[in-house]
Amino acid sequence: MMFSVTVQVTHLPGILDPVGATVERALPALGYTNVSQVHVGKTIRLTIDAENVEAARAQCEEMCQRLLANPVIEAFAVSIDDVVPA
Amino acid sequence: MMFSVTVQVTHLPGILDPVGATVERALPALGYTNVSQVHVGKTIRLTIDAENVEAARAQCEEMCQRLLANPVIEAFAVSIDDVVPA
Repeated sequence: MMFSVTVQVTHLPGILDPVGATVERALPALGYTNVSQVHVGKTIRLTIDAENVEAARAQCEEMCQRLLANPVIEAFAVSIDDVVPA
Repeated sequence: MMFSVTVQVTHLPGILDPVGATVERALPALGYTNVSQVHVGKTIRLTIDAENVEAARAQCEEMCQRLLANPVIEAFAVSIDDVVPA
């Protein structure tokens, strides 16, 4: 079966988020002074062909560990959005 | 009131996604031959202090147009996740 998967990659707590910090510094210059706690992460959407939802999730978590995220500084969350019978 | 907001920024249909294409090419080299349609986008989480949910959403959409996304090549979706009374 084909599974539609979304992976959210965020910085681990305590890890610097330079993009978020830059956005947070830039917003007041544009007149937006009421925004705080800006964090910028990655979203990866993909389609995977797997036996079942458990296999799809396990493979996605392995791909995150090996390629999609850097587990030293990033956390990831895998969610299976949709199932498309092959 | 304080609103917790998530902005999803994705490429518009037909716009090249070089990061997604690179990931899709890299996965088979790691043994993952069952993955396709890889798209990589940005997720921005922020906290905004606004009168009500409509004002929070309107300001976030304006910030997307001006800074957070590039509307020429990117689509964005603003979702208000949570409300924290100030």
